Amino acid sequence: MNKNSSNMMALAPNTSNKRETVCIFGTGDFGRALGHKMIQSGYPVVYGSRSSQISNLIPKDAEVLGHAEAAQKAAVIIIAIQRQHYNFLTKLADVLHGKVLVDISNNLKLNQYPESNAEYLAQLLPGSKVVKGFNTVSAWALQSGTLDASRQVFICGDDVEAKQMVMNIVRGLGLTPVDKGSLLAAQEIENYPLQLFPTWKFPIFLSLGLGLFYFFYCLALDVIYTYIYENNNFSFFIAITVPNQVFPAMALTLFGLVYLPGIFAAIIQLYRGTKYRRFPDWLDKWMLCRKQLGLIALAFASLHAVFTLVSPLRAFSSWRTSRQIVSQALNNQTQPLDHTNAWRSDSYLALGMLGFFVFVLLGITSLPSVSNSVNWREFRFIQSKLGYLALILCTAHVLIYGGDWFLNPAAYKWYLPDTYMLSLIVPCTVLVVKFVLILPCVDKHLTKIRQGWERNPRYSE
Amino acid sequence: MNKNSSNMMALAPNTSNKRETVCIFGTGDFGRALGHKMIQSGYPVVYGSRSSQISNLIPKDAEVLGHAEAAQKAAVIIIAIQRQHYNFLTKLADVLHGKVLVDISNNLKLNQYPESNAEYLAQLLPGSKVVKGFNTVSAWALQSGTLDASRQVFICGDDVEAKQMVMNIVRGLGLTPVDKGSLLAAQEIENYPLQLFPTWKFPIFLSLGLGLFYFFYCLALDVIYTYIYENNNFSFFIAITVPNQVFPAMALTLFGLVYLPGIFAAIIQLYRGTKYRRFPDWLDKWMLCRKQLGLIALAFASLHAVFTLVSPLRAFSSWRTSRQIVSQALNNQTQPLDHTNAWRSDSYLALGMLGFFVFVLLGITSLPSVSNSVNWREFRFIQSKLGYLALILCTAHVLIYGGDWFLNPAAYKWYLPDTYMLSLIVPCTVLVVKFVLILPCVDKHLTKIRQGWERNPRYSE
Amino acid sequence: MNKNSSNMMALAPNTSNKRETVCIFGTGDFGRALGHKMIQSGYPVVYGSRSSQISNLIPKDAEVLGHAEAAQKAAVIIIAIQRQHYNFLTKLADVLHGKVLVDISNNLKLNQYPESNAEYLAQLLPGSKVVKGFNTVSAWALQSGTLDASRQVFICGDDVEAKQMVMNIVRGLGLTPVDKGSLLAAQEIENYPLQLFPTWKFPIFLSLGLGLFYFFYCLALDVIYTYIYENNNFSFFIAITVPNQVFPAMALTLFGLVYLPGIFAAIIQLYRGTKYRRFPDWLDKWMLCRKQLGLIALAFASLHAVFTLVSPLRAFSSWRTSRQIVSQALNNQTQPLDHTNAWRSDSYLALGMLGFFVFVLLGITSLPSVSNSVNWREFRFIQSKLGYLALILCTAHVLIYGGDWFLNPAAYKWYLPDTYMLSLIVPCTVLVVKFVLILPCVDKHLTKIRQGWERNPRYSE
Repeated sequence: MNKNSSNMMALAPNTSNKRETVCIFGTGDFGRALGHKMIQSGYPVVYGSRSSQISNLIPKDAEVLGHAEAAQKAAVIIIAIQRQHYNFLTKLADVLHGKVLVDISNNLKLNQYPESNAEYLAQLLPGSKVVKGFNTVSAWALQSGTLDASRQVFICGDDVEAKQMVMNIVRGLGLTPVDKGSLLAAQEIENYPLQLFPTWKFPIFLSLGLGLFYFFYCLALDVIYTYIYENNNFSFFIAITVPNQVFPAMALTLFGLVYLPGIFAAIIQLYRGTKYRRFPDWLDKWMLCRKQLGLIALAFASLHAVFTLVSPLRAFSSWRTSRQIVSQALNNQTQPLDHTNAWRSDSYLALGMLGFFVFVLLGITSLPSVSNSVNWREFRFIQSKLGYLALILCTAHVLIYGGDWFLNPAAYKWYLPDTYMLSLIVPCTVLVVKFVLILPCVDKHLTKIRQGWERNPRYSE
Repeated sequence: MNKNSSNMMALAPNTSNKRETVCIFGTGDFGRALGHKMIQSGYPVVYGSRSSQISNLIPKDAEVLGHAEAAQKAAVIIIAIQRQHYNFLTKLADVLHGKVLVDISNNLKLNQYPESNAEYLAQLLPGSKVVKGFNTVSAWALQSGTLDASRQVFICGDDVEAKQMVMNIVRGLGLTPVDKGSLLAAQEIENYPLQLFPTWKFPIFLSLGLGLFYFFYCLALDVIYTYIYENNNFSFFIAITVPNQVFPAMALTLFGLVYLPGIFAAIIQLYRGTKYRRFPDWLDKWMLCRKQLGLIALAFASLHAVFTLVSPLRAFSSWRTSRQIVSQALNNQTQPLDHTNAWRSDSYLALGMLGFFVFVLLGITSLPSVSNSVNWREFRFIQSKLGYLALILCTAHVLIYGGDWFLNPAAYKWYLPDTYMLSLIVPCTVLVVKFVLILPCVDKHLTKIRQGWERNPRYSE
Repeated sequence: MNKNSSNMMALAPNTSNKRETVCIFGTGDFGRALGHKMIQSGYPVVYGSRSSQISNLIPKDAEVLGHAEAAQKAAVIIIAIQRQHYNFLTKLADVLHGKVLVDISNNLKLNQYPESNAEYLAQLLPGSKVVKGFNTVSAWALQSGTLDASRQVFICGDDVEAKQMVMNIVRGLGLTPVDKGSLLAAQEIENYPLQLFPTWKFPIFLSLGLGLFYFFYCLALDVIYTYIYENNNFSFFIAITVPNQVFPAMALTLFGLVYLPGIFAAIIQLYRGTKYRRFPDWLDKWMLCRKQLGLIALAFASLHAVFTLVSPLRAFSSWRTSRQIVSQALNNQTQPLDHTNAWRSDSYLALGMLGFFVFVLLGITSLPSVSNSVNWREFRFIQSKLGYLALILCTAHVLIYGGDWFLNPAAYKWYLPDTYMLSLIVPCTVLVVKFVLILPCVDKHLTKIRQGWERNPRYSE
């Protein structure tokens, strides 16, 4: 909707002349890109540059002057130079006094300097009003006009009016300013563009490791074992059959791992008799990536669902079906319906689908816009009640799928349990311990501790 | 992304000393949890307490003083005591004059008092600047650092600067402040954490009742009737077959109920000849829960889709297929393709899938972030045009599924119509009446009324 | 959650008397609807009208006065009259001096006047503080209380305090104000409600055209050819078989078209040796609708997935299966498993499902709330890396589906390639050229150009 706004404004000549001149210090790539965009949006732009000779890369409609002359022409000065060169600005302190300086710099790694670039700039020039902003926007995107990523520009600064002026420019460029508060937030804003899914790293590596283990385990039992002992070459199982054993195993294990840290936390609190001591570090970190673990589990569950639904379309499946039916026909017999089997098949399918359905609901409520529109009580209700419901349904799905195979020695090739049996370990542990924790006597004790009403005196100092 | 912000700040010693002291009145659970979090985020905290002896539950780095001394040390005072005890604050009126008081209290039930706690506080201490906030945050979440629910903190207050100070503290703690306006909004903010999906209650109870009815109806016709008259024990139908008749019936009925109130509203307006009289209360309430009804209908439609797709995997289904084929083979015959049946089967499947597809589109556009990015005209277009398209497709799906069974007496076990026939009543009514309403002569009249241009004079006073 | 807020406030008599009188100029439909809503929310309302006689359509609790008298009673005046009649307000300039005027007008078409209505009003009455707002809200929705569309009210204005007053009223009505900056944004806000998915128009028309072409092409080859040369009437293929060839062809072609403009852009930059010249207009426009093209491709891919999964349920499919099996049984033979075919079938299914899975992930990250929570680097990673991964998987899916049919003359009915072969043209072109572009020597050159470090001097002026 808003995509054309900046173009629109540039086209309306009667509005553009109201816009105030903006000065840009530095003619590097980002400085030029920002200048282009501003001129397009109707802002007169003046560049402050060391060499007064006009570079042919600078937008044609922009003026280029020395730093001091350029700064005098505008109330807002964009500092598009690198932190190492901020020192020379102190010479201009008089000219820059009272001006709004916009620090748009980025560092090369997280927490590179003790203080943020914007705070450093504010210390160098205490008479100027420093505002942090624009560092999260890509020069390439500004230049090409294809800002299809987030249009949000994070702004922070100590002076409210200066911040307001910069936010108006941001709006003038067709972007959305987001006020992040005082200049204290600059470090956070500077670290922001350097991150690549920081909270996802551990869950993804964990999933990769677990996935590889399950894959080779399943390959050994389903393909290699069959090849050695039954002399069947089922190498094509690698495409669908093996993944479709790995995916549900991953989904169930990871889903169990989402609820395991909560169980640990409860046990630790019960043991310590207080909630006022920090959890061990590993538990804190684990708790912080539960959402990511849950979403990865959901991804695997979805893959399992699709891989299962597609199975009637496989050449192997239609070959197997026709072989069974032809042999029945040749033997002149019709098998009666096995009611036990019909019950087992229908119930594990139904449980799996219901579990998946509740799991998808959980996933939808974890979308930022949905979780922002529920309150804490509602969020707890969904994540705790619905989450455990999904876990119970999915675990029951696998248990009934296994049925009496758990007791059948033939199911244990090379004396090893099947993949789905392994995947039950974590969720079954979670469910059993959780069942103990919600027994009235234990639950009452735990609730007291969590309300801070009661504690074990031997732990207080 | 932001999760580490508060930790980061605590680690940067050069920034923490800029933070101003915050005073907390009350050493209860939430007061302590908030104090912990503030100290972690680099705020000096001083507690105001009745007994000056230092409790061992209070964060170690916090100071504990009497109320008056504590209040003098800070500009912002968090009132972490219960409304019943607000009276004693009047004695401190002088000390609290000009200070920012943050009311974080919650009530036990909705609209417990005539005025909100924050407004009550403001009345008691007219010289102080009262800001409402933090009441939607959980103490347990603050304490454990696992704020995985909404990070939004709703703030309201009459004094803009006081509000700004509190919002800065909220940002300093790594949370997101949301300005809800003047202190008038306090009642809304106080009621917020007490609600558990208020708009969902009626739709969920309605669905439960309707679902139970359909379930037992279907159970009687499909399982009990078959058992009595055909002597077949199909009890395992309870797992998949019966639910997969209940789900689509629920989906279609509820989807019809989404559009029924709009039909009623149009009829009422046509009858009254004016839009300037309120609808009856039940209709207003019904209209307000259309979105929820629609989403529940979508949930049932999704379940129906998955339960249908899974059917080739059922043991019952493969038994039935092989029985049919074996009997053909034994009779030495190949049945020719029944073209009518092929047409019927393909069209009801295609209609169902297209209807479901449009229905899912509708569901996606009702996500808060999507519906916020469309304007009123676009929203009307989607909800009205696409909604009716989905309803027409789904109704046609069921009508063609039924085919000539509607006229076949054998379809009426115990003289009762099948579940899917019942589910057609509401949507067919809606579609027929809607068809009448969009006839040019009726539509023109209705449009006039809705534009407020014309009315029936006999109704004006 | 917020739905009851306005009602709640109206019910709380102690709060309503704090609300300040609002004046509304004009007693048209929107003026009356807004007045009703304000009275419900506890605001005293006074109408300014030409005729002092009280119309029976105006809310009962509202006062009706002449314009001047009404204006004197309130600080905020809603101008609910049309732009053509703004002239008469100049006569009231003295009374309106210092007042907050809220321009709620809309035009009939985009950019109807050189300046926005709000700016025109500000020019007419320079002594008043003009705020734009409420124009995106529907009168009918206000009246009926069923504001189920976006509750956002876009506000802009040059005077911060005036804007704040209007935003407070918006909140008082239970709506969400969104500050869009200074009055310059009025044109954008006024154009907003006139748009009907402007960015979707081209992608939808393109899809329609392409879809029709594929449909008739496929109809000719699958239904008409079969009818003429094999004398089989497969007209029922129109319902599922033909669409299920059109959908994947559409999905793959459109998905290729998403990445084609990026390829063109890279080639143009390589050829020009600079990034500082604008792309041709058609390329700019194409790049701006990539997201829409991608989402439409995803919609077709989803339809393809569902139409494929449903195929075992078709009457045609079960007829074909039983015919094959019966003929095997009658010939007394069991076919051995064709390993090549099993490999082919399993791999194209697996590739298709994985490609679809990655594609759905891409779709989820393009939801506004999700894409707002990732930074630029993360967004680039998802859209570029994951996007190409999905494209590769989907293209491989079709290539393996085709298998050795590409070389088989029997596959070319009427010497024409099959639909899926046509759909490969665009994505294969994209992948081949992209492969050339990421060759180290080419990529290095391109990266330099995009960082602005290097350019071909013959193009600078």
